[in-house]
Amino acid sequence: MSMHQVLIGGRWQDSMNNGSFQAEDPQSATPIADEYPVSSWQECEAALDAAVSAWETMRGLPAEQIAKFLECFADRIEARSAEICEMASRETALPVEPRLASGELPRTTGQLRQAAQAARNFSWCQPTIDTATNIRSKLGSIGPVAVFGPNNFPLAFGSISGGDFAAAMAAGNPVIAKANSMHPGTTRLLAEEAQAAAEETGMPAGTVQMIYRMSHADGERLAGDPRLAAIGYTGARQAGLKLKAAADAVGKPIYLELSSVNPVVVLDGALAERNAEIATELTGSCLMGTGQFCTNPGLILLPAGEHGDTFRDDLASKFSAAGVGTLLSQSGQQGLASAIETLVAAGAKIVCGGNVGGGAGYSYANTVLEVSGDTFLERPDTLQTEAFGNATLLVRFANGEQAAEIIKQMEGNLTGCFYTANNGSDDGMYDELAPHLRQKVGRLLNDKMPTGVAVCSAMNHGGPFPATGHPGFTAVGIPGSLMRFGMLQSFDNIRPHRLPEVLRDENPGKVWRLVDGGWSKESVHADAVA
Amino acid sequence: MSMHQVLIGGRWQDSMNNGSFQAEDPQSATPIADEYPVSSWQECEAALDAAVSAWETMRGLPAEQIAKFLECFADRIEARSAEICEMASRETALPVEPRLASGELPRTTGQLRQAAQAARNFSWCQPTIDTATNIRSKLGSIGPVAVFGPNNFPLAFGSISGGDFAAAMAAGNPVIAKANSMHPGTTRLLAEEAQAAAEETGMPAGTVQMIYRMSHADGERLAGDPRLAAIGYTGARQAGLKLKAAADAVGKPIYLELSSVNPVVVLDGALAERNAEIATELTGSCLMGTGQFCTNPGLILLPAGEHGDTFRDDLASKFSAAGVGTLLSQSGQQGLASAIETLVAAGAKIVCGGNVGGGAGYSYANTVLEVSGDTFLERPDTLQTEAFGNATLLVRFANGEQAAEIIKQMEGNLTGCFYTANNGSDDGMYDELAPHLRQKVGRLLNDKMPTGVAVCSAMNHGGPFPATGHPGFTAVGIPGSLMRFGMLQSFDNIRPHRLPEVLRDENPGKVWRLVDGGWSKESVHADAVA
Repeated sequence: MSMHQVLIGGRWQDSMNNGSFQAEDPQSATPIADEYPVSSWQECEAALDAAVSAWETMRGLPAEQIAKFLECFADRIEARSAEICEMASRETALPVEPRLASGELPRTTGQLRQAAQAARNFSWCQPTIDTATNIRSKLGSIGPVAVFGPNNFPLAFGSISGGDFAAAMAAGNPVIAKANSMHPGTTRLLAEEAQAAAEETGMPAGTVQMIYRMSHADGERLAGDPRLAAIGYTGARQAGLKLKAAADAVGKPIYLELSSVNPVVVLDGALAERNAEIATELTGSCLMGTGQFCTNPGLILLPAGEHGDTFRDDLASKFSAAGVGTLLSQSGQQGLASAIETLVAAGAKIVCGGNVGGGAGYSYANTVLEVSGDTFLERPDTLQTEAFGNATLLVRFANGEQAAEIIKQMEGNLTGCFYTANNGSDDGMYDELAPHLRQKVGRLLNDKMPTGVAVCSAMNHGGPFPATGHPGFTAVGIPGSLMRFGMLQSFDNIRPHRLPEVLRDENPGKVWRLVDGGWSKESVHADAVA
Repeated sequence: MSMHQVLIGGRWQDSMNNGSFQAEDPQSATPIADEYPVSSWQECEAALDAAVSAWETMRGLPAEQIAKFLECFADRIEARSAEICEMASRETALPVEPRLASGELPRTTGQLRQAAQAARNFSWCQPTIDTATNIRSKLGSIGPVAVFGPNNFPLAFGSISGGDFAAAMAAGNPVIAKANSMHPGTTRLLAEEAQAAAEETGMPAGTVQMIYRMSHADGERLAGDPRLAAIGYTGARQAGLKLKAAADAVGKPIYLELSSVNPVVVLDGALAERNAEIATELTGSCLMGTGQFCTNPGLILLPAGEHGDTFRDDLASKFSAAGVGTLLSQSGQQGLASAIETLVAAGAKIVCGGNVGGGAGYSYANTVLEVSGDTFLERPDTLQTEAFGNATLLVRFANGEQAAEIIKQMEGNLTGCFYTANNGSDDGMYDELAPHLRQKVGRLLNDKMPTGVAVCSAMNHGGPFPATGHPGFTAVGIPGSLMRFGMLQSFDNIRPHRLPEVLRDENPGKVWRLVDGGWSKESVHADAVA
């Protein structure tokens, strides 16, 4: 069969490829027939040149046109929803219903439409006017952005449809999408609709481009290339760190989401009140999507003693009773097995599970591990190894001091949760522990599991390294996620007709602007300007 | 004489030093008697431990207390103004009047007071509430910050008094200040007042600490140490890049200000109208502070032809007629001479100046260089070498296309200026060129020189690499500069009494908050919260 084409400079074309690859159906553990190209450096360069050229036009376009593109794209995804979800399900083993068709796809189109709205109302770019000095500022587009999407959310985090794509595009930047090699077919369908939407809304050629794969060396070269302004990457830590090194060396922003064990701290009073209820909630959160969520709770701080023992035993029987899902890929299965081996070698005991198989295709038994607080503190780094999938590690702390010590040893995470008694009996310990956990995580929760990431303006899907590459930014949530792909632009004494519309005295669109230190939707009166 | 003490963990103490150094009086080119320690790694560790301990207390303090500390510090600096300015003048050769006492010192205390105000009104932390999801967010303190200050603004960018210090502190973080080796005495006086202010306002020991110097290896080790959360660095490019590599490797934010040639584009119509006027303005901007401003105009795009020739000749005679100032240091003199040699070797011709000396102590003649657009485009990188001091390079472009090509070859800069005709005759070329320059600079100006950086909320003292390390942030301007030293913190379903005060339903302080997508100073009504 013939090789699929790449999307470069506004048209689908035969790849200047160095090789090819196939995706796999994880449920049958067999290759899918379609052949996809591994692009050459020459092809990466063609994409970079086309992106620069697209950007020179894009930065002169009204925000309204970019908003229309995003909305048109969302409409087109919906119109092709059945085909896209079927393909995604085949390539990832995620079920069409409810996950893809009723969950991830509406989330994806919702994100695109929210991003369109943020482009239109300029909420992301923080227009600021100081009348006394006649200095004005806003975030402006940064330039061509490369997006590397993960395997676990083929639509909502997809490189040409997901959060990073929507954010980069709404901030006015062309995107070079690098498909995840696990779901090239899904990415192809989405890229077809993105390109069709770009044409329909008059966007310049090269606004959206898509390459399936390139060598690691070419990926690093791309990351360091001066034609590229910024990078969004969600995926494996090792590959991400290589891209980061290449981008850092030339002072280029790269926003990474790398790994997170998402600690959940369950205190004794909460267990006394709601032991089984919390175990049920945790089981659901841990096994959702076969545990392959960025915010999956992988490390549970549980008190030593009777309540904790009851909880552990209950959790283990719930894990054992639940069906075993299919993992996204063979490498996912291998990675999970290897992480669990690492944890066991470091002193964790298997409470249930611990073996490959049990579900259709690539799978691994639902697994609970346990380790004492003392052992954890002997090897805190190794015992924070992320077991990406349907496994979780219970760390049994002896007392509040030890729990604090464990938290202080933690790496940066996306989320951290506390379950405490409703009667207030845990409040003292909460007050001791929460300030420490607060600094280690992007999102702190009470009485709620971390899976489920609302797309709202107060969301932080981010956190200190290695959860992400910069603790000041979120990858989910609008307008926040757009700010990653802007550069701060100050306009000092610029002649009025040359100012960007959003920074002129008049404010016809009723945009929120920070004027002389206060937020306002009013026009600035010319006579107030010095 | 005895060695000066370092400020660690809340007290002045003898240094655990590895060596010592002296500062120099640049006007007499002689060493100043005082001896200062080069701290050992052991001393850096003591500072890190004390900073972590201070931070654990600081993060529980009300913002009001931090604001009071900053204001108390500003008052104390003013009370000791004469001594501080005299010491700074001796160590840097910057004149007490008007530069230090009437310019830089009031700017410094003004920044500290503005930062106090931002801490108090929470403007820097962008409190955000989504009532439908009950998710709330804000920037919170990031942890201990190290500040490395430059030699050219001993007070306003000083490591324990300047913009980075004020920003890091107002955002709730303890600061480890590393004195600039050129003005240790000035830093010592400021550190004395900072510590006294910390004691007076009840801040924990270790809130402010100061070390004079450490080995380069220890500096890099400090940058990579997990106890340190972020870094602010203003100074030489090479040293900054080493710290950046160390910080990047562990995913730690580092905000750098490295170098900038601050292009000024003067178009032909402007020259026809205001040739001498612009030459006078440029001379003032180029020679102010002996040209040792971050925003000094070092690269002037000037049209080939008669108007440009007249301008060049006029500029050269103004440069030659002006007094020659003293440079900050011997290494500054060497660096300037070496940069000019590099420019000449790359094809630039000396129009005037070009020799060491001419002023008191370390000095270099006021120098104008010139190169054709063609030659510039043959060696664009070398011809952007920053000649830090009283020298500027004229690049004579043949036409608009060449000017655009030159701008496209530019590195990132802090500022970029356009001078155009008042009669509109340059507007066509402006429209061609400005979008390209816009993307290369943090602050774009019209009809105004870039020296003079107002501390206001729309200021951007930042720009793409290598001007800074991240194009999304400003080092000057409040509240923007504070945001560099915060981490984004989301609060999901947090029990109301556990929320930070600024995110609770009530808004008694009339803080601006983003509530459900709109900015408001009102309280959130509990029944509106889902």
